[in-house]
Amino acid sequence: MQEIVQGLKGRNKTVGFVPTMGALHEGHLSLIRKARKENDFVVVSIFVNPIQFGPAEDFSRYPRPIKQDIHLCREENVDFLFYPTGNQMYPLGFKTYVAVEQLSDVLCGAARRGHFRGVTTVVCKLFNIVQPDSAYFGQKDAQQAIIIQRMVKDLNMPIRIRVMPIVRHKSGLALSSRNIYLNEKERRDALCLSAALKFAKDLIKSGERNCQIIIKKLREFIESKKTARIEYVSIVDLNNLKPIERITDKCLIALAVRIGKTRLIDNILIKTYDISRG
Amino acid sequence: MQEIVQGLKGRNKTVGFVPTMGALHEGHLSLIRKARKENDFVVVSIFVNPIQFGPAEDFSRYPRPIKQDIHLCREENVDFLFYPTGNQMYPLGFKTYVAVEQLSDVLCGAARRGHFRGVTTVVCKLFNIVQPDSAYFGQKDAQQAIIIQRMVKDLNMPIRIRVMPIVRHKSGLALSSRNIYLNEKERRDALCLSAALKFAKDLIKSGERNCQIIIKKLREFIESKKTARIEYVSIVDLNNLKPIERITDKCLIALAVRIGKTRLIDNILIKTYDISRG
Repeated sequence: MQEIVQGLKGRNKTVGFVPTMGALHEGHLSLIRKARKENDFVVVSIFVNPIQFGPAEDFSRYPRPIKQDIHLCREENVDFLFYPTGNQMYPLGFKTYVAVEQLSDVLCGAARRGHFRGVTTVVCKLFNIVQPDSAYFGQKDAQQAIIIQRMVKDLNMPIRIRVMPIVRHKSGLALSSRNIYLNEKERRDALCLSAALKFAKDLIKSGERNCQIIIKKLREFIESKKTARIEYVSIVDLNNLKPIERITDKCLIALAVRIGKTRLIDNILIKTYDISRG
Repeated sequence: MQEIVQGLKGRNKTVGFVPTMGALHEGHLSLIRKARKENDFVVVSIFVNPIQFGPAEDFSRYPRPIKQDIHLCREENVDFLFYPTGNQMYPLGFKTYVAVEQLSDVLCGAARRGHFRGVTTVVCKLFNIVQPDSAYFGQKDAQQAIIIQRMVKDLNMPIRIRVMPIVRHKSGLALSSRNIYLNEKERRDALCLSAALKFAKDLIKSGERNCQIIIKKLREFIESKKTARIEYVSIVDLNNLKPIERITDKCLIALAVRIGKTRLIDNILIKTYDISRG
């Protein structure tokens, strides 16, 4: 992969990169299409990264429909699919980690210890292998996108990070490879995540600025679903992911909720525009 | 710097890189000359990296003879000197670190907590900025060289690491920017480091294989100098830097000794050749 890309670079071609864990859905495809539009060559990687899963998490049962993924990549005119094994990425003796402090310890990082260190380490490796001009991530994983932007800036990586909007089912449910874990009832209950975020935005538009009050209302809203167990509901500053008390500028509302045994996340960016209309 | 190098890369030129903390001596110059020989362009960086110094260490008094360094770089036909400020390398909000586990916690890393994390972080940044084909390090900092080789391999950096032999004064003293801290008497006492390593090699050549015995003799040898205080004397495996009990294959003998207030290090590689002659 590295040799191929260095050949392209020698010919001054631009490379767009979409790193994924496979089980591709319309969210991934939106990233691939953007990469296709903006670059001479498009590289997709599929790697279910063991070091970003905790011991009690779903590494082994994470979906791996590789044939379907290859088919989708072909349909989207992806030029190269990078599909390494665990041993190729982490051979015996591997001991180097990339960590973004503070940002990795909050929100999803509080419950998933070591998760983001696993993410930044594998993304750093993939960036060195693929050497893209631009790399594409989904706003669905908002914290991940912010952490990777921080890593790229801090480590002076010559890569442009593009973060693309969340793709949702028409019901409002944010697309996720983990949605296949949901049964029919859970899938209905899972709509409380996106509905809660819409509710929050409406509250803000109608003038509410107190985060404690907004969070309380969101928690009540979500907890009205029997299968829902909240992990966190947070309103945070976009730069440091620290909780804010009042909404005075753009910010991120993020939540993680278990629906049955399935952990789902969703988020919404509140823009200056939304606030000024309040 | 990054733009300049990307321009060179676009023209398929090779770049050799010598990262330094300045106060250049013949050791650095041997690296620069090797880089000059092997590459189309040579980049030298001078940056006294604050995050690799502990709070009680010599960051503020570390020598910074920049005019002399620039002169030396010109004399050696260095193409680019990269000389950033602390704020440019670590702007407000910086929070990403690269760490090589285990290897960073032993030998010099045991006494200098966080030192090697500072080294790997800055070297990762410099590699991303300079994007060299080859980077040159001195065997004098043997542990640093091993850790950087590990980082480059683990993070798939497309860079060849070249480690060049220790350059010594004719007295045997390994060249170091910190030698200027020594007064005349200390400079004589400091010869015990290189003499001890020569002594160890002779012991091995004469058939001694027991590391405990070799280390005991080296300690006695060094402690015969009044100004010398040993930090460590270790015989380690080259791959994992773990202490070995018997010498059966090539290995590293490394030591750190304070001469007065000045901390000095030195080391010797024992090769299969040295052992087979025993």
